[in-house]
Amino acid sequence: MNETITSTKHIFEGRVIKLDVHEVMLPDGSTSQRELVRHPGAVAIVPLDADQTIHLVRQYRIAADRVLLEIPAGTLEPGEDPLVCAERELQEEISFKPGKLESLGGIFVAPGYTTEYIHLFLATDLKPSSLEMDADEFIETVTMSLTDALKLIETGEICDSKTTTALMIVARKLGV
Amino acid sequence: MNETITSTKHIFEGRVIKLDVHEVMLPDGSTSQRELVRHPGAVAIVPLDADQTIHLVRQYRIAADRVLLEIPAGTLEPGEDPLVCAERELQEEISFKPGKLESLGGIFVAPGYTTEYIHLFLATDLKPSSLEMDADEFIETVTMSLTDALKLIETGEICDSKTTTALMIVARKLGV
Repeated sequence: MNETITSTKHIFEGRVIKLDVHEVMLPDGSTSQRELVRHPGAVAIVPLDADQTIHLVRQYRIAADRVLLEIPAGTLEPGEDPLVCAERELQEEISFKPGKLESLGGIFVAPGYTTEYIHLFLATDLKPSSLEMDADEFIETVTMSLTDALKLIETGEICDSKTTTALMIVARKLGV
Repeated sequence: MNETITSTKHIFEGRVIKLDVHEVMLPDGSTSQRELVRHPGAVAIVPLDADQTIHLVRQYRIAADRVLLEIPAGTLEPGEDPLVCAERELQEEISFKPGKLESLGGIFVAPGYTTEYIHLFLATDLKPSSLEMDADEFIETVTMSLTDALKLIETGEICDSKTTTALMIVARKLGV
């Protein structure tokens, strides 16, 4: 079923993403083009208190042209350990440091055209600790019960793919 | 919290995606750049039999460099009704037509840099009906119980964001 890249044209290299167009050979020997965004990967974390309160962030997303409610997340630096990235992003975005970070697996956000894979984590035993955020990030933090967040997935108010996935994985783990 | 686009550079226009780089004014009056993939949007469908068997598709994804297990899905034609697209994709990918199509909401796959929004549906009352697939798609169909698919989310074998989200929404609806 595999496709083989026969030639690549580098279109763009930006701050976060790169864009390549590949000529590929298909399993039947015919050819096609694939437009492929290269992304360094990311982490996203469900920060969970002992009483099943979770910490979310609200931020304007130009791609959605609206404010979205998401779990804390961030892009990996080149070669960065996802665990290290997760600890940093939590301190930047919600001002807590996790006592415990547990893997929830990960997701390809849109495997049709972007390499981005997001490592998902559950963060517990949270302790206050802050790091300064990137200058171009404007974020508000929101806390709510996991149960209420699951209702917002049902109503469509939470509609970011990493957030829907990670929250429902945690809900299944906890039997909520 | 909003950002205002002050200028736009069109970098690329391909078969599926476009790429723009925007100069934006941030809430504090400073400026930044946003790399933004424009995507026409998509649909993804959980095809469910009366005995809670679901129909999945296996396909090689160049962005992941592996074969992924996903629910049937497809990109919207310009101006196309998502319901019409969902009916078409089901007939192309799994050779069934839904008697009933129910909305499960939708997701922004990666709102940091792509406009893609996927409309999610539950398809039931499936009847055999085929349409020819795009020439550059090579897909195998797989059927399994919803329960087994949920286990594959836990183990990480199912790791595509639209698939994880839609299957867990259906599981919550059915109390599985």
